[in-house]
Amino acid sequence: MRYGFGVDIFGTEIKMGFFSESGELIEKWKIVTPLMQDGNRILPAIADDIERYMKEHHLYEDQIIGVGVGIPGPVNGSGVVNKCVNFGWGVFNIDRALAGLTGLNVKSSNIANLAGLGECWKGSGTDNMIFVAMNTGLGGAVVCDGAVVYGVNGGAGELGHMIINKEETEACTCGRKGCVEQYCSPVGIARMARRKLAATATPSVLRGSRRIFDFHEVVRAANNGDRLAVDVMNQVYDCAGHFLSNVCCVTNPDTVVLGGEFVRMGQPTLDGIAKAFHRYIFHANQNVRFQFAKLGTDACIYGAFKMVLDEFG
Amino acid sequence: MRYGFGVDIFGTEIKMGFFSESGELIEKWKIVTPLMQDGNRILPAIADDIERYMKEHHLYEDQIIGVGVGIPGPVNGSGVVNKCVNFGWGVFNIDRALAGLTGLNVKSSNIANLAGLGECWKGSGTDNMIFVAMNTGLGGAVVCDGAVVYGVNGGAGELGHMIINKEETEACTCGRKGCVEQYCSPVGIARMARRKLAATATPSVLRGSRRIFDFHEVVRAANNGDRLAVDVMNQVYDCAGHFLSNVCCVTNPDTVVLGGEFVRMGQPTLDGIAKAFHRYIFHANQNVRFQFAKLGTDACIYGAFKMVLDEFG
Repeated sequence: MRYGFGVDIFGTEIKMGFFSESGELIEKWKIVTPLMQDGNRILPAIADDIERYMKEHHLYEDQIIGVGVGIPGPVNGSGVVNKCVNFGWGVFNIDRALAGLTGLNVKSSNIANLAGLGECWKGSGTDNMIFVAMNTGLGGAVVCDGAVVYGVNGGAGELGHMIINKEETEACTCGRKGCVEQYCSPVGIARMARRKLAATATPSVLRGSRRIFDFHEVVRAANNGDRLAVDVMNQVYDCAGHFLSNVCCVTNPDTVVLGGEFVRMGQPTLDGIAKAFHRYIFHANQNVRFQFAKLGTDACIYGAFKMVLDEFG
Repeated sequence: MRYGFGVDIFGTEIKMGFFSESGELIEKWKIVTPLMQDGNRILPAIADDIERYMKEHHLYEDQIIGVGVGIPGPVNGSGVVNKCVNFGWGVFNIDRALAGLTGLNVKSSNIANLAGLGECWKGSGTDNMIFVAMNTGLGGAVVCDGAVVYGVNGGAGELGHMIINKEETEACTCGRKGCVEQYCSPVGIARMARRKLAATATPSVLRGSRRIFDFHEVVRAANNGDRLAVDVMNQVYDCAGHFLSNVCCVTNPDTVVLGGEFVRMGQPTLDGIAKAFHRYIFHANQNVRFQFAKLGTDACIYGAFKMVLDEFG
């Protein structure tokens, strides 16, 4: 029997998964992300943990297919990370670095691409789908004929940075104006609510809130019928439906899978986005089902292992 | 030696190409598109012409790899045409119908997808590119890892029907408002020039033209420095740069190939679009070269034959 690891490196924690060759998630756990020293401790911490796990379970190198790694930034097909600002990483070959530390096969990609691959493999995806997940920002994955499209720099599926509003006056974190992420993200939803509160006198439970409210409050208020919050969420759905209709003109998938925070936001969000989508979509590309992701926050480790299985299995 | 045919069915003429297995275009010619009887004469005319050509050149069926066909509408992977309004076609299996008439292998796809495949194979394309061609409307093809993305209904690459302006008040031919084609197409360019003439008093060689000017006049006037025409063309470039930047966020290609009328419009158009693109593109996806298509109006027959070669060769 052969096995492999799927690793999801995010802000404060690293999620580790141990999989059988057949795709069963045997065990999963987390370690703390060591953010000191410009992120230089991250890969050694992963390597140490893999070594520990293999020792404890009497596993030999030749039983391990490889280690798949998801990082929150673009990675090209050769394993070169092109900066990952969250960790202070520059440009370097993560596959080679981690292979050197572990003695195992390593392959890395963007977390959103891998979450999409995971959903396509073991979740609610299909062979022709768009995966879109709201987490800190808005990431995506594009699956065509069963394969994730990575693009020449690993930059495919950067759906949060499509520009959908040329009239926007505030800047996105990327420096440009009018990105999807400025509307369809936790920060974006809270921003739009603050704007609407300032621009109107509409009564709202959000008004006069002493906390600097986060987007969950907006979603909750909308689901409870608060008129201002409903208006804000309708803008979010309109934005999501609009940009997703444009993505579907590019690749013509049969399914859009909503992951991350979208799942927690619940059925009104899925219905709202689907309804907006059908206002915008070109008739030839309109047969699209909207689904929630099934694997939750495990999607990335599933995808990371699947990538390794496809590459080295 | 084996051979094949590439066929490009367009409005008034059908272009036929005869290729060697190695991809050499041995001969090309045109026949008139018989548009009577709801398009029912089109496939028999193609079959008759192939039979004539094979007889004249003493070719036997087992020497023919197949016939690739491009049509101006979506075709799914099984060969089902989902209406082709230009010809009066409904929903039917074109591959099966033409195979029945010729006794040869047949595979069909959308002309824009095939022109993109042709450019990828023998023109100025690469394995990861976006092909976009202005003809009557604006069609495109998406190539990822050397393969054209067709999508579940053959609707991938419908770039002309991405919605980029939610404020548009006039309707596109598809019935919706704000499609790329309303700006980036021959009709769209002429429309914008008429609008600008009506809305401003800017002097222009286009003003008072007795002819209902076509878009070539606008392009020519802009290339000659006419201020109003330059303004119009800058809007066209801005629109093209904007939607192409969004497409590149989806698939992260290294090349955008401009085909059809874009080629005739010349270098100022390519430069204008590339400049606008770089105003909008997300930094991770910015390394994109802009190229003109090389195969001209032969791109589709090359792609049609290449598709047959991949499928039956």
